[in-house]
Amino acid sequence: MPRPLKLDPDRLLPADPSTRAVARGLYESVAGLPIVSPHGHTDPAWFASDSAWTNPTELLLAPDHYLYRMLYSQSVPLQALGVAGRAGPSPADPREAWRLFARHYRLFRGTPSRLWLDHVFAHVFDIDVALEEETADLYYDRIDEALATPAFRPRALFDRFGIELLATTEGPHEDLRNHAAIRASGWKGRVVTTYRPDAVVDPEHEQFAEALARFAELTGEDVRDWRGYLAAHRRRRADFRAAGATATDHGHPTAATADLGAQAAEALFRRIVTGNWSPEDAELFRAQMLTEMAAMSVEDGMVMQIHPGAFRNHNRWLHQHYGRDKGADIPMPTDYVRGLKPLLDRFGNEPRLSIILFTLDETAYARELAPLAGHYPCLKLGPAWWFHDSPEGMRRFREMTTETAGFYNSVGFNDDTRAFLSIPARHDVARRVDCAFLARLVAEGRLQDWEAAEVAHDLAYGLVKRAYKLDPAEGSPSLHAGRG
Amino acid sequence: MPRPLKLDPDRLLPADPSTRAVARGLYESVAGLPIVSPHGHTDPAWFASDSAWTNPTELLLAPDHYLYRMLYSQSVPLQALGVAGRAGPSPADPREAWRLFARHYRLFRGTPSRLWLDHVFAHVFDIDVALEEETADLYYDRIDEALATPAFRPRALFDRFGIELLATTEGPHEDLRNHAAIRASGWKGRVVTTYRPDAVVDPEHEQFAEALARFAELTGEDVRDWRGYLAAHRRRRADFRAAGATATDHGHPTAATADLGAQAAEALFRRIVTGNWSPEDAELFRAQMLTEMAAMSVEDGMVMQIHPGAFRNHNRWLHQHYGRDKGADIPMPTDYVRGLKPLLDRFGNEPRLSIILFTLDETAYARELAPLAGHYPCLKLGPAWWFHDSPEGMRRFREMTTETAGFYNSVGFNDDTRAFLSIPARHDVARRVDCAFLARLVAEGRLQDWEAAEVAHDLAYGLVKRAYKLDPAEGSPSLHAGRG
Amino acid sequence: MPRPLKLDPDRLLPADPSTRAVARGLYESVAGLPIVSPHGHTDPAWFASDSAWTNPTELLLAPDHYLYRMLYSQSVPLQALGVAGRAGPSPADPREAWRLFARHYRLFRGTPSRLWLDHVFAHVFDIDVALEEETADLYYDRIDEALATPAFRPRALFDRFGIELLATTEGPHEDLRNHAAIRASGWKGRVVTTYRPDAVVDPEHEQFAEALARFAELTGEDVRDWRGYLAAHRRRRADFRAAGATATDHGHPTAATADLGAQAAEALFRRIVTGNWSPEDAELFRAQMLTEMAAMSVEDGMVMQIHPGAFRNHNRWLHQHYGRDKGADIPMPTDYVRGLKPLLDRFGNEPRLSIILFTLDETAYARELAPLAGHYPCLKLGPAWWFHDSPEGMRRFREMTTETAGFYNSVGFNDDTRAFLSIPARHDVARRVDCAFLARLVAEGRLQDWEAAEVAHDLAYGLVKRAYKLDPAEGSPSLHAGRG
Repeated sequence: MPRPLKLDPDRLLPADPSTRAVARGLYESVAGLPIVSPHGHTDPAWFASDSAWTNPTELLLAPDHYLYRMLYSQSVPLQALGVAGRAGPSPADPREAWRLFARHYRLFRGTPSRLWLDHVFAHVFDIDVALEEETADLYYDRIDEALATPAFRPRALFDRFGIELLATTEGPHEDLRNHAAIRASGWKGRVVTTYRPDAVVDPEHEQFAEALARFAELTGEDVRDWRGYLAAHRRRRADFRAAGATATDHGHPTAATADLGAQAAEALFRRIVTGNWSPEDAELFRAQMLTEMAAMSVEDGMVMQIHPGAFRNHNRWLHQHYGRDKGADIPMPTDYVRGLKPLLDRFGNEPRLSIILFTLDETAYARELAPLAGHYPCLKLGPAWWFHDSPEGMRRFREMTTETAGFYNSVGFNDDTRAFLSIPARHDVARRVDCAFLARLVAEGRLQDWEAAEVAHDLAYGLVKRAYKLDPAEGSPSLHAGRG
Repeated sequence: MPRPLKLDPDRLLPADPSTRAVARGLYESVAGLPIVSPHGHTDPAWFASDSAWTNPTELLLAPDHYLYRMLYSQSVPLQALGVAGRAGPSPADPREAWRLFARHYRLFRGTPSRLWLDHVFAHVFDIDVALEEETADLYYDRIDEALATPAFRPRALFDRFGIELLATTEGPHEDLRNHAAIRASGWKGRVVTTYRPDAVVDPEHEQFAEALARFAELTGEDVRDWRGYLAAHRRRRADFRAAGATATDHGHPTAATADLGAQAAEALFRRIVTGNWSPEDAELFRAQMLTEMAAMSVEDGMVMQIHPGAFRNHNRWLHQHYGRDKGADIPMPTDYVRGLKPLLDRFGNEPRLSIILFTLDETAYARELAPLAGHYPCLKLGPAWWFHDSPEGMRRFREMTTETAGFYNSVGFNDDTRAFLSIPARHDVARRVDCAFLARLVAEGRLQDWEAAEVAHDLAYGLVKRAYKLDPAEGSPSLHAGRG
Repeated sequence: MPRPLKLDPDRLLPADPSTRAVARGLYESVAGLPIVSPHGHTDPAWFASDSAWTNPTELLLAPDHYLYRMLYSQSVPLQALGVAGRAGPSPADPREAWRLFARHYRLFRGTPSRLWLDHVFAHVFDIDVALEEETADLYYDRIDEALATPAFRPRALFDRFGIELLATTEGPHEDLRNHAAIRASGWKGRVVTTYRPDAVVDPEHEQFAEALARFAELTGEDVRDWRGYLAAHRRRRADFRAAGATATDHGHPTAATADLGAQAAEALFRRIVTGNWSPEDAELFRAQMLTEMAAMSVEDGMVMQIHPGAFRNHNRWLHQHYGRDKGADIPMPTDYVRGLKPLLDRFGNEPRLSIILFTLDETAYARELAPLAGHYPCLKLGPAWWFHDSPEGMRRFREMTTETAGFYNSVGFNDDTRAFLSIPARHDVARRVDCAFLARLVAEGRLQDWEAAEVAHDLAYGLVKRAYKLDPAEGSPSLHAGRG
């Protein structure tokens, strides 16, 4: 007989009864709030076409590098899991891939993937037995059937999930036709884009040349001229804003910024576009472009997100055979204090600038990020990210940032996911962990209960809307009117 | 109706009832012990003149960078808070500044500033409503009135707070007239100084030239000659000891030390005093001076405190307009293992030397500092410092240092503050957090209750007196007579 | 009257009653499992000769650098504790040394040494009063008497402790006569060796020349020729496997690896053996040798252990007077992401390779090690090590690695000790801490109770046998048959 799948209604809340009671009360007050997802990687085509997804493996397993990286670490080959390689699609039968996944499900014990998946299985698909080898087919059939029904189409789920806003991510070299189609369709769901210029900013990006060419086409600018290149950014930023974007996003290896004089910047750009650059030039150009992007944000009000610190494609063989984003990115130490200084020297006190900092290096939380965000008016702290987007990771984020930066220099939760079905699960985990943290503060007499309730609401809903300027009515990203 | 301000008598103690009972017992046994404050930045003029403070804003808000850095991070301008700039004093009306602070008081939720302030409001000023916009005037009036009364003069509060000893910090270029005046006054409060030579040791300090000139005047030595310069230090150290100092303090950007030969040291000093130095020279000179100071400590027995790791004045604009120490210092990673080696190679096993190490880089606790202090006889660990001087920060300090260095290589609490009124609050927080940690050890069967009681007393009172050699009767800084 | 020594049967389990009940159940299910100790430094001569140990000081105090480093940090001289110097054995009377230790026993409050020692005193020697100055002689006599009895001979204790397997560590320059003698004796205890080639791999090792000469003698190879040197390694690896070894061990200052071409490697080796090397050459040679060892592991199936990150012999004076391994090794930051890349580029996806990574730099747990082990099939995470082999250290290990690497990329516990009598205590602490962690996951609804029971068994017993290939029947180190 299969084992039951049953989510503990008090999961992730502290075990001590009095603290749990406080946490439960806080959680109940925010559990039903709308989901605001200002940073993620879902495919806007889903919402444009509203087509049904194909099967459980293609929807849940093959695109989720959290899952197959763990399976790969235990010697399960990617091609057996439905993951496409450079040579073409996986030859694996989707049902066989799903069975292989089910057989190894124990590997996820203690991981956030397990929490998210069980939530999806129980709440989205209403399954009440645990996933294991014996139930693999039951799962496959149940999910497969559901996906064929109208209630499981992307827009229906978007509405069912209570999503108030969902941001996707596109590059300056991409058209925004899906976003246009969503708008044209008359559907009321609010799906917006985000300006992510990495492919035209990072000379080491494998699509750099191609993206640059497309960037020229889409803008009509001479993007091989420094002024034309900057003008092209301004044009595309305006296009993105027209498609609802309020933010840009920058995924750089480091947090380095630079503030070169006009001539030096132009000379550097020349080396970059002519292909005569060294790795140091590439790093310097990315650094300079963060400052250029900040300058444009001062003009157009777009919020900057900086996501540094990953060594991309660390596994050489895997990169050669499977390409980018296959679970082989590994975090590195990241220096924010010296890295951000050139940008901050120029714009650190600019009231119109808002920069949200992320990290893969938790040692920066208490040492650098909280002190920076607790001082500079333009800096805010993004939530625990990627490898740290987990109960222990989120707890450490609050424990290591709150005492110096407070709650109000943080920006609420980002799910940062392409796994659309897991979005409610991820926000639910974040709300529970934040309520658990707040409950401890209350139980230890460090915060009043009414204050904790206000903060819980802000962390789940209020802060994200202010930080990402999602309420045009409010105007300012700051909590407070006054610059006295 | 305003909300009540009521401090939980069990605040900061663990929520689990059996652990809390142990913690409460430990806390009750140390809560009333005298305060020994061996490292801080209060103004000795307060105790020399015993004049009344002027108003709440000038006393509590304008000098406290913990407070205005947080407000500034949320776009509240410093000049609106009563903070003086380089151009002159703030034009803000003190009452208006206080109202602005009150309106933003929620920003401090979850921060130690909030704990300290509420303690000051409730215990020092006997206020029983919470600070918010509506109660700003009530607070201002109540505090303002109190400050005009004799019971709120510096010496009266010193006595009321149960302070057994308070150390201030002065430089070699400063006279010690306030300390002399305190002594001459016949008042029994024990206020001593600390020798902090940064201004004459760090060529990058903006007062270096000026301080050096004053150093020469005060000592009559030729401080532009290497031997004269060292002799001047010896003289001033003797003056400071005569004013009660038992310790020196060194606030360097890094923990680098050096042990140059006599000729190299002299040549370096020549470059320094003639202004022909590079940044590397400046770093090397600071490094060399730590070893010179250690050599003098071996002679005169003064305890060395090393406080490394801050990137000072990170916000360029703010530094230009408001000067130093305005909440814009940001921690950096700090290397102790290689940094301290030259000094330790020379003096690491010296029985007369005692060095107290601090850090802004918590990653060094378990990795470097506890292993160093758990081995070298001359090294002790200062308490969680500055950004980490907070409940979570103190807890991490104990969790990450005790298993390798034990309790007896730590030195009790430092408040490190210029906010005199918060001193009891800060010591109270430290005592509570230490008792909470000890109670967990007892509840988990890792320590006997009678041992925890002994340790709690040592952490609150015994260790600081031994580490800073404050009981002349005891003589030795070591716990134990025997060097076998 | 002396205070009682009584171990709390629930020690190290969480205080919250419902979590404790879960933890207790888990602990009871694993407390009696056999001990598998795949990595340690006990002396095989003990089991070969089965002679009685001499006295408490020589057995428990003088060889344990955890103990005398703490005493030394409080100014107790090593020679008074029975620690031999380079000049010869300690002149201290063993009983006097023991008394000195007893007088300072309070220093160990809150440390793992205290937990281990009390366990040894209570469980191995059946002592029921606490160690303090007054009971020093009682302890000395009781232990001394016991050691003279057959029940306290090495083999008898090995059996009594329920040790299923114990690995020692030898170098390629050492014969394996003790292991041969153990086998020849007919005793059934399974004591195996481990191949630790540091002395012939690290040109900066003080025994390098001597070890190389002995390496040549034992193998008959021309070890001053690059091919001969590698052939000698192959021979000795085969010898070690014949003596039961399934693993190699590499204690390097950093995690750097290299993958030089054949000519460059040979040229580098030439500089090394002719003594014409720089510190950079030494580092590069160690780095290259990790990759060479990996290549041999691919051939012969031996598991690699990499233990990087210690600054050895940090205390210059102590090293001059007392030699290596005297408690003066200090951890440093360690870079795994760039360091391991050359080796991983070559062998990262090799199914026959298995590498167990350790660290002294806890910041690498969540940032580098868990992401690496949660992706690469050849990488596993060794347990919390050395300074971090403690309740708080082990807890942090689980909290910072499980969410990304899961439990199944970890390898169970290593005691890594030469303190044979403490082996049961160390495994007991690890089992308790792991059960405490699992109980929290259960109490917080993150894991089902039956899953936690499975994991607890794996952490205590199953994983170590698979990771170190200790069950020849199983064949593969992986959990799972399939590489699809």
